[in-house]
Amino acid sequence: MPQERPRPGKTRPGGRTAATRRAVLDATSEILVESGFSHLDLAAVAERAGVGRTTVYRRWGSAAGLAEDLLEDMAETSLGRTRLGDVDRDLEECALLVRKTLADPRQGRLFRSLIAASVCSEETAEALHRFYAKRVGEWTPCVHEAVERGELPGEVSPERLVRTVSAPLYYQFLTTPVELTEEDAVEAAQQALALARAGLLNRPWTDEGPGV
Amino acid sequence: MPQERPRPGKTRPGGRTAATRRAVLDATSEILVESGFSHLDLAAVAERAGVGRTTVYRRWGSAAGLAEDLLEDMAETSLGRTRLGDVDRDLEECALLVRKTLADPRQGRLFRSLIAASVCSEETAEALHRFYAKRVGEWTPCVHEAVERGELPGEVSPERLVRTVSAPLYYQFLTTPVELTEEDAVEAAQQALALARAGLLNRPWTDEGPGV
Repeated sequence: MPQERPRPGKTRPGGRTAATRRAVLDATSEILVESGFSHLDLAAVAERAGVGRTTVYRRWGSAAGLAEDLLEDMAETSLGRTRLGDVDRDLEECALLVRKTLADPRQGRLFRSLIAASVCSEETAEALHRFYAKRVGEWTPCVHEAVERGELPGEVSPERLVRTVSAPLYYQFLTTPVELTEEDAVEAAQQALALARAGLLNRPWTDEGPGV
Repeated sequence: MPQERPRPGKTRPGGRTAATRRAVLDATSEILVESGFSHLDLAAVAERAGVGRTTVYRRWGSAAGLAEDLLEDMAETSLGRTRLGDVDRDLEECALLVRKTLADPRQGRLFRSLIAASVCSEETAEALHRFYAKRVGEWTPCVHEAVERGELPGEVSPERLVRTVSAPLYYQFLTTPVELTEEDAVEAAQQALALARAGLLNRPWTDEGPGV
C-alpha cells in the first residue's frame, strides 16, 4: 500500500497542500514535545492541525510517516553553517548550535522523542540518519576550506571531525542528567580539533561515500 | 500509592521472591528487545513470566517500574572492569566492552529501548543515569591508579575520561546507521587518552560529587 501513497506533502509544492503539511507537521512536533512518539496518534494530529482525518491517514499513513516527514522538513529548513574563515571559530559555532538545540526545552524534547521513535520504526531511523547526514554535510566544507588554508592536516576526515564535535554533546544529552552548557560546547569543539591536529581523525567515516 | 509498594523484588532476597523477580525481569527484557517500551504491558509480562498479574501490578506498578527495576538489576550484575595495570589497555577493554554490548543484536536493542523509555518516563531516566554512573564508577579507579603510576597527568577528571571513551560509541550507535566495529572502540579509547594527556579532560564531570 505505501507505494500508492504520494510522498507526504509533495503533491503540490505551494498553496493548500503546503499549508496543510505545515499545520500537520506543527501538530506532530507539538505532540512529540508534549507526550512523545507513543502518543503520536494520527487522529489527534488531524484534530490539532484542523485537517481532515482522511487527509492525514492518506498522506502520512502512520505515526512513523509523520515523524519521517517532520525530519525531512527539519532537514530542509535547518540553519546553514557559519563561515567565519577560521575553523576553530566555525566548529565552535557548530558545537554551540548543537548545544543550543539540545538544551532548548522544546527542541530538546523533540530530538529525544525523534531518537526514541527511531527505535520503534526503521523508517524514522532512516529519516533521522538522513537528517544528521545533511546537518553534518553542511559543516564539512569548512573543514575542506581549513585544510586549504593550512589550519588542519590534509589527511583529516571532514565528516569524522564534524561528527566528533557532536558526539560528547549527544552522549551527555541522552545518557546523563547533566545539563549541557556553552562551556561543554566550546570544549567539544576544542577536543575534536585537537584530535584532528594529532592525526587521530583521519579514518574516513564510512565506506558508503559522501553524504552518508 | 507508590510509596506503599515495597521496592520491587526486595521483600525477600532469596527463594520465591528472587525467582519471581528473575522471571519478571527476563520477560521485561525480552519484550523490550522484541517490541520496545511502548509494548511493555504488565499483563503481557505476567503471562510470559508465568507470574500472577496481581503480583506484577502490586510489585512493579507500571511499565516504568519494570524498566527501572531491570536497570537496577543490570547495574547489580554488570561486569566489573578489567585490571591490566596499564591504562591504555584498561580503557581499550572498557571501550571494547561498550562496543560489544551495543553491537550485540539483543543487548543493542535492549539499550535502545531503555534509552527510548527514558524519554517517556522520568523514573526510567533516573534509573538509566544511575546505571551509567555505576558503570562509569567501576572504571574510574583505573584512572586513579594510572595517575599514581605516572601514566596520566594528575589533573585529569577520571569520570570525564571514562565517559569520553563511551561518547563516540553511543553517538554512532544512537544517531547513525554505521555499525560499531572493534576498530571504533580501540580508536575511542586512544582518542580519550590523547585528550587526557593533552590536558583537555581536566574539568570535573559535574559539581554533584562522586558517583553522580
